[in-house]
Amino acid sequence: MTGVLRPGHVQLRVLDMEAGVHHYRDILGMQETGRDAEGRVYLKCRDEFDHHSIILRETDQAGMDFVGFKVLDLPTLDDFEKKLQAYGVETHRIAAGDLLETGERVRFTTPSGHQVELYAEKTLVGNGCGDTNPKPWDPKVTHGISPVRMDHLLLFGPNVPETLKLFTEVLGFNLVERVLGPDGETNIIVFLSCSIKSHDIAFAHYDEPGKLHHVSFLMDSWEQVLRGGDIMSMEDVPVDIGPTRHGVTRGQTIYAWDPSGNRFEIFKEDRQPYPDHPPLTWTLDGLGAGGGLDYVQRKLHETFLSVVT
Amino acid sequence: MTGVLRPGHVQLRVLDMEAGVHHYRDILGMQETGRDAEGRVYLKCRDEFDHHSIILRETDQAGMDFVGFKVLDLPTLDDFEKKLQAYGVETHRIAAGDLLETGERVRFTTPSGHQVELYAEKTLVGNGCGDTNPKPWDPKVTHGISPVRMDHLLLFGPNVPETLKLFTEVLGFNLVERVLGPDGETNIIVFLSCSIKSHDIAFAHYDEPGKLHHVSFLMDSWEQVLRGGDIMSMEDVPVDIGPTRHGVTRGQTIYAWDPSGNRFEIFKEDRQPYPDHPPLTWTLDGLGAGGGLDYVQRKLHETFLSVVT
Amino acid sequence: MTGVLRPGHVQLRVLDMEAGVHHYRDILGMQETGRDAEGRVYLKCRDEFDHHSIILRETDQAGMDFVGFKVLDLPTLDDFEKKLQAYGVETHRIAAGDLLETGERVRFTTPSGHQVELYAEKTLVGNGCGDTNPKPWDPKVTHGISPVRMDHLLLFGPNVPETLKLFTEVLGFNLVERVLGPDGETNIIVFLSCSIKSHDIAFAHYDEPGKLHHVSFLMDSWEQVLRGGDIMSMEDVPVDIGPTRHGVTRGQTIYAWDPSGNRFEIFKEDRQPYPDHPPLTWTLDGLGAGGGLDYVQRKLHETFLSVVT
Amino acid sequence: MTGVLRPGHVQLRVLDMEAGVHHYRDILGMQETGRDAEGRVYLKCRDEFDHHSIILRETDQAGMDFVGFKVLDLPTLDDFEKKLQAYGVETHRIAAGDLLETGERVRFTTPSGHQVELYAEKTLVGNGCGDTNPKPWDPKVTHGISPVRMDHLLLFGPNVPETLKLFTEVLGFNLVERVLGPDGETNIIVFLSCSIKSHDIAFAHYDEPGKLHHVSFLMDSWEQVLRGGDIMSMEDVPVDIGPTRHGVTRGQTIYAWDPSGNRFEIFKEDRQPYPDHPPLTWTLDGLGAGGGLDYVQRKLHETFLSVVT
Repeated sequence: MTGVLRPGHVQLRVLDMEAGVHHYRDILGMQETGRDAEGRVYLKCRDEFDHHSIILRETDQAGMDFVGFKVLDLPTLDDFEKKLQAYGVETHRIAAGDLLETGERVRFTTPSGHQVELYAEKTLVGNGCGDTNPKPWDPKVTHGISPVRMDHLLLFGPNVPETLKLFTEVLGFNLVERVLGPDGETNIIVFLSCSIKSHDIAFAHYDEPGKLHHVSFLMDSWEQVLRGGDIMSMEDVPVDIGPTRHGVTRGQTIYAWDPSGNRFEIFKEDRQPYPDHPPLTWTLDGLGAGGGLDYVQRKLHETFLSVVT
Repeated sequence: MTGVLRPGHVQLRVLDMEAGVHHYRDILGMQETGRDAEGRVYLKCRDEFDHHSIILRETDQAGMDFVGFKVLDLPTLDDFEKKLQAYGVETHRIAAGDLLETGERVRFTTPSGHQVELYAEKTLVGNGCGDTNPKPWDPKVTHGISPVRMDHLLLFGPNVPETLKLFTEVLGFNLVERVLGPDGETNIIVFLSCSIKSHDIAFAHYDEPGKLHHVSFLMDSWEQVLRGGDIMSMEDVPVDIGPTRHGVTRGQTIYAWDPSGNRFEIFKEDRQPYPDHPPLTWTLDGLGAGGGLDYVQRKLHETFLSVVT
Repeated sequence: MTGVLRPGHVQLRVLDMEAGVHHYRDILGMQETGRDAEGRVYLKCRDEFDHHSIILRETDQAGMDFVGFKVLDLPTLDDFEKKLQAYGVETHRIAAGDLLETGERVRFTTPSGHQVELYAEKTLVGNGCGDTNPKPWDPKVTHGISPVRMDHLLLFGPNVPETLKLFTEVLGFNLVERVLGPDGETNIIVFLSCSIKSHDIAFAHYDEPGKLHHVSFLMDSWEQVLRGGDIMSMEDVPVDIGPTRHGVTRGQTIYAWDPSGNRFEIFKEDRQPYPDHPPLTWTLDGLGAGGGLDYVQRKLHETFLSVVT
Repeated sequence: MTGVLRPGHVQLRVLDMEAGVHHYRDILGMQETGRDAEGRVYLKCRDEFDHHSIILRETDQAGMDFVGFKVLDLPTLDDFEKKLQAYGVETHRIAAGDLLETGERVRFTTPSGHQVELYAEKTLVGNGCGDTNPKPWDPKVTHGISPVRMDHLLLFGPNVPETLKLFTEVLGFNLVERVLGPDGETNIIVFLSCSIKSHDIAFAHYDEPGKLHHVSFLMDSWEQVLRGGDIMSMEDVPVDIGPTRHGVTRGQTIYAWDPSGNRFEIFKEDRQPYPDHPPLTWTLDGLGAGGGLDYVQRKLHETFLSVVT
């Protein structure tokens, strides 16, 4: 158990802001909650309480600028900053207000080459259902594919074992599942949780650092995953894999690409691991023919290991 | 509206009876209801009232021997026999008892080269739920993938337009959906219903006559389709396509193969067409990139047009 | 098998048109397709092809004016008119155009005291999905509870056996399920199908003639039934029974009331009966303690037999 | 964030062991994992890794003997023991092996009069899916209603505010939702989470101490909740409320009673609260007419506040 709550925001690079906003707001169905002086656009999912979970920045190369994890409170933030520094990780503070409605952030670089940050404060705007005798969901913010929340990320880069060590030993994440490399020993993909979610973040080996494999959005049900797939088809969103079940994490999934080529996932969670259970292990063959990636098809789709941003 | 009720039985050729029975009884979850002197094995689905819907015959080439449609009653059977003969179709009677618990059958060959038969009588064995204050389903016969019923077939062969004409003009089927060939005019696949099912039978153009594309089994829900896919994966049933939605008929589907290579489908129906509505039309491009076959993926899986038995 | 396709329209009496339109259009999610010179409002469900299925008429007493069944074509309409007259039922023709976009109707009164009519022609306006390479559903017409179609009715009145006889012998309906009265012999509720729907219309014994128990709207899934219940709750629609499963017909259901006190149902169908299967029988005790009305709760909700309009 | 993982076992008193085992093993579908010298029977749900989650003890009065929470490890157990004592709570140790396959337990009495214990060690027997390239679920242990896990409890007794204080200040639970009493200020029901589950335990005001309202079992989907209700009906399990949605926690639910009169719930979770979100508040009226108990029916079922064991 740790003081890291969840991945709270991801800044995505998009090649065309208008197309990006259309995708995340109108097709995926997030709410636009703000734009800043740099032209960045902020969005949230329908059941998120915080001001935003996705930030879009227009530039000429797709990918992820950074992912931020919300921690319990300011003392917890200070504590993690010290622990990171004691572990030998260089950190720096980004001032409150650099992101709209967001407090100070502690930024560091992972061994996999990703910019990760921790923060304790972001304005709670609520989910529209009210605090007293609340509705279960708010029809006014329910449109498009309509995920519950931004849920987790899979990042590609080098030094997976070192990154795993950092997240487990310093940040208190649990290793929930893992894929072993050809040597049958080295972790080449690790799925990490700071809660009882099947994963809050995952890292896979890739020679180039700092790459994004996908950002995942949580759906309420397998029925809603198909409905999301229908909408992708109607809206000409290119689909990569699915609908199917992942063997790894058991999640029910569709992978697709946003207009800039950033992969995203809609998925229904189907497992809640606890830290007293040993991690599940997948062999490299298990990832493909064993159904780790696609449990129904039992095949390793070629794009899975090769297409990142 | 016609006196043909539904496809009531299909005789499948299997290369190994033990493997075939294991597949249809233990994995798919049908009940074995009899074996005859020729060694054929009879099976029914959990919510079927008739004695059997699938008959397995062991031989050295996979495929379908014949499909039988149940008609309302004996006068209807006689009437269709006369209509077929008047239309110029040669028919012959097969004696009652040739198939277990089944009355006389009127057999003919379609222009597509398939053996089709009509019959009016088969012993009702019930669904195990009782006739008075019945249960909604019977746990005692619910195991494996557990489809509701054998639902429809897709057959491949030549002379699709002539076959369409026979089924609509003589047997009273409705053309519900169709796929046009490269000329934009000729029907190369036709989906036909004798009820308000999205299809009771379909025919696709193929040079070789008498081929089976798939036999389809109805599932209660999209959730049950995935559960069926999980079971296929656990049981090493090779999966062809899905889970996904067909654009054509909107069905939610997985295609897979039995141990002899006969394709079968588990599907959830999502459309009830009526005969006063004009048929829906798919272009050849619409079948692939338009999502006719795979609405989410919008691609024409190579096996769809090439693998038959 | 018969030439009657389905219940195609129901004219409901509402006490306040504005409230009625708000209910059926904004909460239930039907589309308003027209208003006529008499002030009647016409609505259709999202997957209906015909111009309308519900007509609202404002007056000072709730209930149903009439239900119309669409038949296959004009010769079928003439044929049924003759059969009804030969059976001793008085009929009269209502001119085309009396209802918007609707052809001539043949009206008669059932022994249960209900106005029933047959018609063959109504303008097809489509479901918004297109006829070529169609979408599976149209987001533009998907809002509110969003039923697929108006599906069936349960009507209360005297002379159930005579009404059953009329519908089966003259109109060709099948008796699918029935509830026996205290004598264990008389049918006091009958469920009738003119297709393979679990019921197209049902009649229950009631001393007063011409009463409406409920109009039912079809939902895609049990998940959509709950979502509909959520919306009813948010919109202060008073709910009568459910969500639960009916033992009779196996339907998954919520009963509720429109602002005028007309009961309506949203339900997911879970049975497709064929005319070669004997009807299922429920005892009076089976309707309550046997789960006929509420399979999970196994009780006879008091409102079921007493509240009608 | 706390070191308490989850409610790990509940010892229930049953009036007839054979009937109790039949209920939990054969109808609910748990696996029997052991019987001890005292005659107690141990059971686990299909996706639980620990040796057992329910212990049945035969005696002449129904109810709950105790509930045990698993903590992260032995140092955490010692730590909580000290914190409880420092807070003024009397604790005592129960020796390892008193419960089969279970380590030392630290027992205390809550202000509400319930026996609660903490423990760190219980033999992991697994879920049958394997640790390497695991299956998503194991057909061999999937039968009956088949819940995923024992999930949470609602306990009735006095001193709710003091019990809340103990669980939040000493054990680190979060107050997720609460129901206010007639004075509009006092918490009369509190829902507490030690994770991101919508609740791990809840307490409601009741004059008599130490009462059990219900033990809840997690289901995979709303479809599985109805299937569970079907099985209850077939097996003559008396149902209290549902299927419906709770407004509080949004859970999709059926309440029913075991043969001894202990209420149990099958439910699908629909909310994952985080500790940085303020608790949701329900007024007493909101619990009933506001949909807190039954969101669709918006009524306070009389049994909810009055029937406990």
